[in-house]
Amino acid sequence: MNYRFAAEKDCALILSFIRALAEYEKMEDQVVATEELLREWIFEKKKAEVIFALEDGKEVGFALFFHNFSTFLGRAGIYLEDLFVLPEYRGRGHGKALIATLAQITVERGCGRLEWSCLDWNQPSIDFYLSLGARPLEDWTEYRVTGDALTKLAGEAGNKQQTGIDH
Amino acid sequence: MNYRFAAEKDCALILSFIRALAEYEKMEDQVVATEELLREWIFEKKKAEVIFALEDGKEVGFALFFHNFSTFLGRAGIYLEDLFVLPEYRGRGHGKALIATLAQITVERGCGRLEWSCLDWNQPSIDFYLSLGARPLEDWTEYRVTGDALTKLAGEAGNKQQTGIDH
Repeated sequence: MNYRFAAEKDCALILSFIRALAEYEKMEDQVVATEELLREWIFEKKKAEVIFALEDGKEVGFALFFHNFSTFLGRAGIYLEDLFVLPEYRGRGHGKALIATLAQITVERGCGRLEWSCLDWNQPSIDFYLSLGARPLEDWTEYRVTGDALTKLAGEAGNKQQTGIDH
Repeated sequence: MNYRFAAEKDCALILSFIRALAEYEKMEDQVVATEELLREWIFEKKKAEVIFALEDGKEVGFALFFHNFSTFLGRAGIYLEDLFVLPEYRGRGHGKALIATLAQITVERGCGRLEWSCLDWNQPSIDFYLSLGARPLEDWTEYRVTGDALTKLAGEAGNKQQTGIDH
């Protein structure tokens, strides 16, 4: 399998994969991303990276990832946010090849871990991930503040004063 | 409450907070971070940021965070990896002030979400997070590949060929 890193010209393609994955996850109503937002946050602000799986030169799957950080290891890791292969190209090893490529990038960059999250009802994916040597972090739950709650919480910090100059 | 961003001279202090938090989580045997690693990955490679809570000029707590990415929102978020307040300075609002400051940074930078993970047995923290408006992502579990399994998986990507030039 070949792969390539996405470039700025690929924003429409990236968005089409994001939408296809959201549809599979039954969450397509939550997608508010646009090509322009992806251009700004991935290619200008460089907050994520994307690789495509290729078959005969056609992009048949994608992986979007970014660097996270382990304080215990004292170094960055890689977090796989989205992984998707077009339905008609499944069963040919593209998903495994994308994850293996990310594992290779993780090692090459000196990072300590490759991580991602999976919906608990997605047993086929869970079985696949376990077969790759991944282990679930059973004892942890993720928490999120967004929307009005985020704005409200941010407002409660308004009276603080930053005394440092280095950032 | 005052706060400041950490600078390169603060690596020993950051490491002391990381160790104190690991001890609280009963995971101190997992800490392999060193001052040199923190210097490299936080201040040279810029894979994380740290703010300290200050009381009378003394650093009494810290928050270590990095940017994650939401494909649904099409923009980055902020992920709080570590939050810790020295035991003798608890109950004075430093924890909430640190999180509120991160919420403020999240909004100022145009990011859509502030997220973190919590151990499921840590009910006092869970109650605290819910009181801030955070909601648990109950349906998701995180998976991790590390150590020998990561090396093995990376090796399975060795025969792939990158055809793109942009990365």
